[in-house]
Amino acid sequence: MNRGTLYIVTAPSGCGKGTILENAADKHGLVYSVSATTRAPRTGEIDGVHYFFKSREDFEEMIKNDDFLEYAEYCGNFYGTPRDAVEKLIEEGKDVLLEIEVQGAMKVMDKLPQAVTLFILPPSVRELKRRLLKRGTEAAEVVEERVKKAICEIPFAKHFDFVIINDDINNAIRDFDACIIAAKHLRKCHGKDIDNKITEVLENE
Amino acid sequence: MNRGTLYIVTAPSGCGKGTILENAADKHGLVYSVSATTRAPRTGEIDGVHYFFKSREDFEEMIKNDDFLEYAEYCGNFYGTPRDAVEKLIEEGKDVLLEIEVQGAMKVMDKLPQAVTLFILPPSVRELKRRLLKRGTEAAEVVEERVKKAICEIPFAKHFDFVIINDDINNAIRDFDACIIAAKHLRKCHGKDIDNKITEVLENE
Repeated sequence: MNRGTLYIVTAPSGCGKGTILENAADKHGLVYSVSATTRAPRTGEIDGVHYFFKSREDFEEMIKNDDFLEYAEYCGNFYGTPRDAVEKLIEEGKDVLLEIEVQGAMKVMDKLPQAVTLFILPPSVRELKRRLLKRGTEAAEVVEERVKKAICEIPFAKHFDFVIINDDINNAIRDFDACIIAAKHLRKCHGKDIDNKITEVLENE
Repeated sequence: MNRGTLYIVTAPSGCGKGTILENAADKHGLVYSVSATTRAPRTGEIDGVHYFFKSREDFEEMIKNDDFLEYAEYCGNFYGTPRDAVEKLIEEGKDVLLEIEVQGAMKVMDKLPQAVTLFILPPSVRELKRRLLKRGTEAAEVVEERVKKAICEIPFAKHFDFVIINDDINNAIRDFDACIIAAKHLRKCHGKDIDNKITEVLENE
C-alpha cells in the first residue's frame, strides 16, 4: 500500500484558509492532524478528537523524548503536533492535513521534507485588513496586531511548495484542490512511491 | 505581466499522451511549441504552424549557434526545438506545451530548469503492449520495437516533476489537468513570480 500524503497548510489569519480547507478535506477525505495541548478541555471537546489533552508533566516528557514535530507555548499552555499520530496515519495510507501557523509549519517541513507544503496569501495586506475589519468580531487594535503578524509571516511563503493567492475564493478553492491532486504525482513528495511504481510498471511485462 | 509556463510532456508511445494533451491544451489554452525540421513539407503542412521548415544548411547553422533547446536526427532528417520561439511565447505570458520524446525532454529540462516536466506512464509494460497491438495499425515486430523502447524510456520518469500513470483515461485527464493548474503555484517553476507577488502583497498596505 502506498503511504499517505502529509499536507502542511498555513496562512496569516484572515486569508480564507478555513473555507478552503473545509472544502478540500471533504472532497479528498483528508484527515485533520490532532494537536496535543496542556490546556483544559472545553465543554464538548473530546480527547483524541479535538485535542490530545495532556498534563504539563506528560507534555514536557514528550518534549524531552522528541515526540513532537513542533510545539509552542501560548498564554501559559503548550500546544504541539505529536509525531507518532501523524506518522501512523501516513503509514496507514491516510492523507493528513496539518493546519498550522507559519513558524510551526517551518519546523515540521524541516523534520518531514517529503510533506507537501502550501501557503495561502491574501491579495494584499490592505485587502487582508479590510477583510479582518469586515468580520467585525475583533477590536481595531486586535486587527492591527493580526495585520502586523501577517506582514512578518508573508515573506515565509517563499519556502513553501505551493503558494496560492486568495483573490477570489472560488478560484482559490479550485486551485487548492488542484494542488491536492497534483501533489500525489509530485516527485518531491512521492519520490519513493514513484520509484516503486516505475519498478512495478517494468516488472509487469 | 507574469511569464508563461513551459510544460514539457513526454511518454512512451501508446500511453495515451495525445488524448490527454488535446484535452489539456483546449481547456487551458496551451500553445503547442512548433519544431523545426529539414524534412520536406507534406501536403497541407504550413510553415510555422506544423513545423518550421528549414534547409539542412540553415538547420546546421542554428545548431552551431546553439539555437536549439534540443535536436535529433531521424531517418536522415533533423528535428529540433528552437529556443527563440519557445522563449518568446513564455515572455509573452503564454503557456507552452512541448510534446517531446524522452531523450529530448531530458535535454530541454537541463537547459530550462524552471519548466514543469510531466511523464505519463502506462499501468504496466504488459498493458502497453496490449494497447499497441489493439490499435492494429502496426505490425507485431513494430509493436515489439516500441515496447523495447518504452522499457528503456520508463526509468527516466524519476527525473520528472510529475509522474502520472494512465490506468484509467478519465482519471489521467483529471490528474493531468490538476498538475497544469497546480504548476502555476509551484515554487520550483514560478519562484521568481512568487517572490515578486509576495513583494506586491506586502507593498499594497
